[in-house]
Amino acid sequence: MVVDLDVLEQNLERLAAYASKHNLKVRPHTKTHKIPAIAQMQMQAGCHGITVAKSCEAVVMAAGGLDNILVAYPVFGEAKANRLAELARDRQITVAVDSLTTAQGISYAAAKTGTLVRLLIELDVGMRRCGVSSPEEATALAAAIGKLPNVRFAGITCYPGHIWNRPEEQSAALAVVSDKIDAALSHLSAAGFECEIVSAGSTPTAFKSHMVRSLTEIRPGTYVFNDRNTMGVGACERSQCALRVITTVVSTAVPGRAVIDGGTKTFSSDRLLSGTQAGFGEVVEDPTIVFESMSEEHGQLDVSASDTKLCVGDKLSVIPNHVCACVNMHDRIWYHRNGVVQGSWQVAGRGKVL
Amino acid sequence: MVVDLDVLEQNLERLAAYASKHNLKVRPHTKTHKIPAIAQMQMQAGCHGITVAKSCEAVVMAAGGLDNILVAYPVFGEAKANRLAELARDRQITVAVDSLTTAQGISYAAAKTGTLVRLLIELDVGMRRCGVSSPEEATALAAAIGKLPNVRFAGITCYPGHIWNRPEEQSAALAVVSDKIDAALSHLSAAGFECEIVSAGSTPTAFKSHMVRSLTEIRPGTYVFNDRNTMGVGACERSQCALRVITTVVSTAVPGRAVIDGGTKTFSSDRLLSGTQAGFGEVVEDPTIVFESMSEEHGQLDVSASDTKLCVGDKLSVIPNHVCACVNMHDRIWYHRNGVVQGSWQVAGRGKVL
Repeated sequence: MVVDLDVLEQNLERLAAYASKHNLKVRPHTKTHKIPAIAQMQMQAGCHGITVAKSCEAVVMAAGGLDNILVAYPVFGEAKANRLAELARDRQITVAVDSLTTAQGISYAAAKTGTLVRLLIELDVGMRRCGVSSPEEATALAAAIGKLPNVRFAGITCYPGHIWNRPEEQSAALAVVSDKIDAALSHLSAAGFECEIVSAGSTPTAFKSHMVRSLTEIRPGTYVFNDRNTMGVGACERSQCALRVITTVVSTAVPGRAVIDGGTKTFSSDRLLSGTQAGFGEVVEDPTIVFESMSEEHGQLDVSASDTKLCVGDKLSVIPNHVCACVNMHDRIWYHRNGVVQGSWQVAGRGKVL
Repeated sequence: MVVDLDVLEQNLERLAAYASKHNLKVRPHTKTHKIPAIAQMQMQAGCHGITVAKSCEAVVMAAGGLDNILVAYPVFGEAKANRLAELARDRQITVAVDSLTTAQGISYAAAKTGTLVRLLIELDVGMRRCGVSSPEEATALAAAIGKLPNVRFAGITCYPGHIWNRPEEQSAALAVVSDKIDAALSHLSAAGFECEIVSAGSTPTAFKSHMVRSLTEIRPGTYVFNDRNTMGVGACERSQCALRVITTVVSTAVPGRAVIDGGTKTFSSDRLLSGTQAGFGEVVEDPTIVFESMSEEHGQLDVSASDTKLCVGDKLSVIPNHVCACVNMHDRIWYHRNGVVQGSWQVAGRGKVL
């Protein structure tokens, strides 16, 4: 697994320029890479904090010097809440919640530790995964949070992860999200709850975030590397995909096929959610080669439409469908500039359990 | 991730009894667990050697005391071949190949090291992944191997991984496999090549291996834990599933749904290949709960058909679709007997690159 540093840096700069133009803060989701050194590059590119998916990722990022961390997940469990409360001694910790139970757990841990944790209320804007369903529920939860010690209601958050439409349909879907957020903000405001933070995520819609009127910050993750999903939804070009998996052809015995030494344990088995919704990766050297199926350690290529005569030992570079899931299969990523390897990063946040 | 030791031991004994009855050797595929301690349990249950998928898994298993290792993969690359040749100093190393290029690489490394590596020729019996396509090709490759130094042709191997039919259709599919193997054996024999080893794999067909006439050894992997795939194809009962992922409900905010703290980075995104081909895991406490979709850290349950009133903080045990892919997401597995945790194993072979 290798990353082109030039492309990575350009991706960071591109988002920073967009966000600056639209007066949006950027709090990138680091679950894409789980590497503190990349999070630090993001901070240097103007991000004002980071996002993580789990309390143990927060621990890893805090150890890597990151001091403004949002856990965009309804964290539940004493050990997890205690770790976050401890982290809040020296840094700003914010957690997304959608139930009083979760808020109470964090409040209890923070009160024991003597720290303050900020809470965002997650709003369901159409994905039907997490998040309160109505402005009334948001306000009721904000009021309940107001009575808990050592936590402070700081705003709302949502994840428009259901928007995988074709680019021309995204605008209408984002308008619905915008209206839902504004309805919640009005209801909260009428009850006396002002939102310092209005946060939304997702790379596919990152460069259309200004269409959601009231946002103060955005949380894209994938944009740092990009992938086939991002290309398929029209949110990046091929030249903006910073990460490749270098594979070796190990078998050409079956006519019309070639096998590379990467399967689901290298790429993950995530399907392509955008564009053609077909294939498990793009072969950079020859896009007419179809990456049609995988076993755990075998990638099966249909080479029947390709003029390339593959031989055992040939190297092929693959852009994965979903780079976050792919990175999570690896313990280390190598990085290069102009093809010269400069070093490697440990995927420090991978596989942690708390 | 937790394993019931009693169930695990019963699974080992059940296969050992079957294999003994049919005079088959067992060389289990350890890619399912990647844990030398479990491989040692398999050896104590009568297995005569083990199988691995990669040279780095061979290194881990050799360090764990395993001394008869088949790499069921066409290993290519100098570093990999060198490591296997080194391992062959003190133990029996066998590699499956389907090309002269691969055989030459291993021969070259073994000659440099002064060791001997056994080679099996992989035969494609219908999966169209790896393997030579005809008896003629098998014989030609055996003849070519015969001229290479420090390797010895030891037999043939195949993987009937395409057989995911309903149980009643497996027998006909296995008869085809049996005929293909016998045709290759006859052709090889006529040219003077005798096969000491005739090896085939797969858990779904493990207990029907006697239907493939000429087999000397079988290589099931999943049978050690079993999973939803194995249940769906009728090759195990629910009570024979030894592994569970213990999850916590983190959100019930969206009506009709509940979210658990395990998604594709906990279970893998492998679909169910057998039975209903639906869902991402079975909730043991209430099978009317449908595990309908996942994000990276969220498991989305459809609870609309269930009488269980789930609350944030409830624990749910999940049997994964594909246990090999699921184990590979974790660094550690806990084991228990009668609900009392006895210890944990490191998934030592995970994430290795050579």
